[in-house]
Amino acid sequence: MRPTDPTFPAPATLAALPTPSLLLDVPRMDRNVARMRARLARLGVPLRPHVKTCKSDRVARRILGGAPGPITVSTLREAAEFAALGYTDILYAVGIVPSKLPQVIAMRRQGTDLALVLDDAEVARAVAAAADAAGVTLRVLLEIDCDGHRSGLAPDSDALLEVADALRSPQVVVDGVMTHAGESYSCRSDDALRAMAEQERAAAVRAATRLRAAGHPAHTVSVGSTPTALFAEDLSGVTEVRAGVFVFFDLVMAGIGVCRTDDLALSVLTTVIGHQRDKGWAIVDAGWMAMSRDRGTASQPLDQGYGLVCDAEGRELPGLLLRSANQEHGIVGRRDGAPGPMPELPVGTLLRILPNHACATAAQFDGYHALGAQGEGSEWWARFRGW
Amino acid sequence: MRPTDPTFPAPATLAALPTPSLLLDVPRMDRNVARMRARLARLGVPLRPHVKTCKSDRVARRILGGAPGPITVSTLREAAEFAALGYTDILYAVGIVPSKLPQVIAMRRQGTDLALVLDDAEVARAVAAAADAAGVTLRVLLEIDCDGHRSGLAPDSDALLEVADALRSPQVVVDGVMTHAGESYSCRSDDALRAMAEQERAAAVRAATRLRAAGHPAHTVSVGSTPTALFAEDLSGVTEVRAGVFVFFDLVMAGIGVCRTDDLALSVLTTVIGHQRDKGWAIVDAGWMAMSRDRGTASQPLDQGYGLVCDAEGRELPGLLLRSANQEHGIVGRRDGAPGPMPELPVGTLLRILPNHACATAAQFDGYHALGAQGEGSEWWARFRGW
Repeated sequence: MRPTDPTFPAPATLAALPTPSLLLDVPRMDRNVARMRARLARLGVPLRPHVKTCKSDRVARRILGGAPGPITVSTLREAAEFAALGYTDILYAVGIVPSKLPQVIAMRRQGTDLALVLDDAEVARAVAAAADAAGVTLRVLLEIDCDGHRSGLAPDSDALLEVADALRSPQVVVDGVMTHAGESYSCRSDDALRAMAEQERAAAVRAATRLRAAGHPAHTVSVGSTPTALFAEDLSGVTEVRAGVFVFFDLVMAGIGVCRTDDLALSVLTTVIGHQRDKGWAIVDAGWMAMSRDRGTASQPLDQGYGLVCDAEGRELPGLLLRSANQEHGIVGRRDGAPGPMPELPVGTLLRILPNHACATAAQFDGYHALGAQGEGSEWWARFRGW
Repeated sequence: MRPTDPTFPAPATLAALPTPSLLLDVPRMDRNVARMRARLARLGVPLRPHVKTCKSDRVARRILGGAPGPITVSTLREAAEFAALGYTDILYAVGIVPSKLPQVIAMRRQGTDLALVLDDAEVARAVAAAADAAGVTLRVLLEIDCDGHRSGLAPDSDALLEVADALRSPQVVVDGVMTHAGESYSCRSDDALRAMAEQERAAAVRAATRLRAAGHPAHTVSVGSTPTALFAEDLSGVTEVRAGVFVFFDLVMAGIGVCRTDDLALSVLTTVIGHQRDKGWAIVDAGWMAMSRDRGTASQPLDQGYGLVCDAEGRELPGLLLRSANQEHGIVGRRDGAPGPMPELPVGTLLRILPNHACATAAQFDGYHALGAQGEGSEWWARFRGW
């Protein structure tokens, strides 16, 4: 069972942890953060990390060098949790709807500089009306569609200016634009990633330029995804970069070529609970409840099942995958065609599974066992969840 | 945000709930429970519901007619949570490992009749040694493999008797066998389901018969999965049936033919937050964080995407699916080839999404908004999670 006391003493060894548990290799995380910071420093653009990945104050402060922001969030729950911890500069990067405005206005009144995004004229009118009625200033970014992936206005569309005009109010600041190149996850080469980063930048800058020409302030040009942030060669005109999963990385990111598997900072500690030796299976106590149902590598050239299998110290066991998962059972076996025999892995053996998708796997746990370095034990870093 | 007070007053309407929220249609749940109870009553076998699906006292008591057990659990956390609520007759249906025995022995000392399962001689010896050392009686079922799906001993194997013999101790009761026909989820016809139910029954009874012949008590013959429980025609020799997902049902169960979509008791309430009208998309605030990443219908004849779309009252909107999902965004669109236009669905429209897999979707939430009947408002029924 998880510790109920978030400050419980660090166990001496991994063997003292319950399984399944979520392990966070802090030195690897620090290395990943340093890489992103160095990259963006060279491009001269600040980072606004997306805390939907970590949902943890301890992790967020580590990314931000101890500062309480700026951050990006995906839910008002994240905004409220971080605001309660003293974070003030928060971008809520999912389209606002009128039913959520009372919460937003309450947070603004409490002093949180919570910026909103939207891409719809009707919503824009509702935001302006709510800000006017409340006498509260709301800062808004228009969401731009740079790649056909999801939400947003086309940067050259008439709708862009129509939505901005619908926001005209003494209480609304049309502060700029935000876009997210979600299609970067489908890129299959460094060149494709560089091109996608430029496509993301160009769309956002183009939209902001048009807004300014129409008389809107449009100070902020916010772009980002982990792959484009790490492969952008020029961010001229961009004022901030958002990225989340780079903190931990995962097998999907490794499959895109954005990191190596030994950059992965998250893993799930699990115990071998049985075997079907005639099938070459070891059964472990990490099923999909621990790993999540995410199979993001299934559409990549190298399908990693429910995760790559490492020994307790985090060294990859070549050719071994979590091949399938039930709720609380995982089946470890060899990748199809892998050479050599299945290792013995007696009942009780501890293994670590590297996840397909850090955001999804971390969300299955209430916190991280943060490991300083081998043999140093761990601290409990709490996560929250919900909406 | 979710209510922090588990007894908060029922909101007058769904519009007062945050989105995404997990809705539980209690009349549908009651109907599903009554169907299972009637089926098993006809077969003369008691139900030991699997509470890994609901992880909720309120739901479990509703299944059990108010009684605190018997129940099946998939984690020691579930065992401890239910034991703390007064449930005493608990089967922990995932293979025990020596590292978890101290928790088991502590629960036994606190008066919980917690039965264990195992399928390994080395584990059996460790269980006998731990029971002897603690002076605590442990009740053990041998796990039987009836379908090649996962764990368990073949019912005719030498290993079955070897493992049972390894348990010989004054402190261990070899109380019988348990098996789970997980392959029933792959059945594609009623005849196949009936055959699978008989295969499950026969394997368990055969194994128990061999144990008794070898001098073990083997009183308990525990079988179950929702599909086999509902399609079994004869359960001679079986002493209890385990099943979990029948309480809520889901699209995977509907795809197997075990229920209809209007039996589904769980849905995710979501708000339309935008559109890409040229693509026929409505964007909603239920992404994979709300629905889970489960795509269990992808391998069925009818792929339901991330879920079927209903209006706020729960009426299916024909041809509409949650076609894809990011963390906090879902994309609603027409099923490929569906006739008719995309409905308007203005921003702010409330929808309900029926999930692929009830266990996985429910696990994404801290509780259920339990709806009595249309217009009656809701109660908050808490869930727990973790290990």
